[in-house]
Amino acid sequence: MAESGRTTTRTRATLTDVAAMAGVSVGTASKALSGTGRMRPETRQRVLDAVQALDFRPNQQAQSLHTGRSWTVGLMTTDGIGRFSTPVLLGAEDALGAGKISVLLCDTRGDLIREQHHLQNLMDRRVDGIIVTGRRTDPRPPLTGVHDGVPVVYALSPSTDPDDISVVSDDAQGCRLAVDHLLATGRTRIAHVTGPAHHAAAADRAHWTEQRLAESSLQLATGRPHFGDWSEAWGRRAADAVLRAEPDTDAFFCGNDQIARGVADTLRERGIAVPDRIAVVGFDNWDTMVLASRPPLTTIDGNLTEIGRIAALRLLDAIDDRPMPGVHQVPCRLVVRDSA
Amino acid sequence: MAESGRTTTRTRATLTDVAAMAGVSVGTASKALSGTGRMRPETRQRVLDAVQALDFRPNQQAQSLHTGRSWTVGLMTTDGIGRFSTPVLLGAEDALGAGKISVLLCDTRGDLIREQHHLQNLMDRRVDGIIVTGRRTDPRPPLTGVHDGVPVVYALSPSTDPDDISVVSDDAQGCRLAVDHLLATGRTRIAHVTGPAHHAAAADRAHWTEQRLAESSLQLATGRPHFGDWSEAWGRRAADAVLRAEPDTDAFFCGNDQIARGVADTLRERGIAVPDRIAVVGFDNWDTMVLASRPPLTTIDGNLTEIGRIAALRLLDAIDDRPMPGVHQVPCRLVVRDSA
Repeated sequence: MAESGRTTTRTRATLTDVAAMAGVSVGTASKALSGTGRMRPETRQRVLDAVQALDFRPNQQAQSLHTGRSWTVGLMTTDGIGRFSTPVLLGAEDALGAGKISVLLCDTRGDLIREQHHLQNLMDRRVDGIIVTGRRTDPRPPLTGVHDGVPVVYALSPSTDPDDISVVSDDAQGCRLAVDHLLATGRTRIAHVTGPAHHAAAADRAHWTEQRLAESSLQLATGRPHFGDWSEAWGRRAADAVLRAEPDTDAFFCGNDQIARGVADTLRERGIAVPDRIAVVGFDNWDTMVLASRPPLTTIDGNLTEIGRIAALRLLDAIDDRPMPGVHQVPCRLVVRDSA
Repeated sequence: MAESGRTTTRTRATLTDVAAMAGVSVGTASKALSGTGRMRPETRQRVLDAVQALDFRPNQQAQSLHTGRSWTVGLMTTDGIGRFSTPVLLGAEDALGAGKISVLLCDTRGDLIREQHHLQNLMDRRVDGIIVTGRRTDPRPPLTGVHDGVPVVYALSPSTDPDDISVVSDDAQGCRLAVDHLLATGRTRIAHVTGPAHHAAAADRAHWTEQRLAESSLQLATGRPHFGDWSEAWGRRAADAVLRAEPDTDAFFCGNDQIARGVADTLRERGIAVPDRIAVVGFDNWDTMVLASRPPLTTIDGNLTEIGRIAALRLLDAIDDRPMPGVHQVPCRLVVRDSA
């Protein structure tokens, strides 16, 4: 980087500089660049000559003054940690960034004051639309303070307003995939160990698992789901509790991969063969967890990157005045490894 | 979202609309809004009346035409997975987003064609500067194609050009903290198990660890570092190998938390008390790993969020024509838990 290039104002010609050199108004210069407005060909040429002489780059900012579009989209995450929102963000960035749209990143960290600050900034920048994502699958209230005509898509955490556009993981179908796989391999005494009952991801997955079993006239081992937290430590404790209550349990379907890994650890330490005597299935397909587990975990992949990609496509549709309100569900995938 | 609000062009007044209603040129309208330029008070008032009537929001885009600044910064990550770059991004976003600067997110996924596409887009949008981050601590070549006067700061992965601005973790000091802690608790036969020798993070940490031991006239247990990969499985295997070669090893300092967790698992399964007989220290302070480990891991925190925050501050300095070239090192922290 040359020292002479450091002063921003010296090296970057502005539209005002171009207009001054061409001897026209800023409005005329802008119209000449965007190809709009009527003017004499010589005038347009004078502006273009000045652009060349000053190495002025016509940019989207100037153009957006005339089109009303900024070709930017806000990506707002409420997830300070990022394990769930990161793949969603990357999927959205992939779908948007391949074209001419740029992504403005905002992290609200679940703080409403930060959310309002960022939202105001996005409005000031006249984003064409906003994608909101979080770390939970629990529904969230709609953003407030969004200007009319700026569409919002909720990814992963749906909006509580059914007329909004939301893109979520199809947890019901994911649970069905897991139970179908266990039933197909001859398991009938399936325990369910999961996170806190007040998290939608735990309550919903327990509900769908019980419902799928009921269709085959089966019940959960021990008769109920085991709610706790999302940790390995809970998986280790819960495996002991379930085997005490129902020693002939032949499978554990767990609400996430950490719990499943904890269950697998307890089984191994008790000398119980996985999957020969007891099968274990996780949820999330979190690479670090599932591969480090002994044995590596069969699990359900929530396709978070695909959720981000589809959220971006729904947002582009809405920006083009073709909104598709409602909750869009993205199918999960069963990933078979060694534990079931 | 009302149906009537959906058409972008209908609801968003542009500067051209304001100028037309006020009966002035776009340039005059723009100057009236930015408070620059000489004009009669009545003219300025006519523009402000039109702004009110049309609900036009003066925005940074219009203002940037006059200042030459866009008040945006590009955040470019080469890390498709995000475990290392995410905290850096969040730290940078935190430092930048608190003010009026917005962050344009680009993910290159280590692909040079994507990098050039994103860079061109950032140049077209006239970003005020760029932060580049990656998943490795290995030096990377400088970005090519950045316009003169647009500063770049490299975070986590330094630039190979010493005249560039880089912000990295002080691995030497981090290794010193780990070894000092082990020596202070009476350990003298310390093994080092780490990642691939061709990764700077592995080679550097091994080098600094040996150097710190040499200052106390000590050598590594087994006489050499054990290079492998960054996985728990490698930690489990390496622990066995080290104990076979040198059964009186009294500590393992590991290149990351996954390896340390694998070492701790092997020790527990062999009935060796941690930390009573053998201490274990990790690196990264990755919450999921260190807390799930039995026992929870003592480790070195690389302060990645702080690296992002400082990278943002150095970038703001450079944008204000006060660049501080060179490699800026951010200190690590020792986090003591139960394993050492």
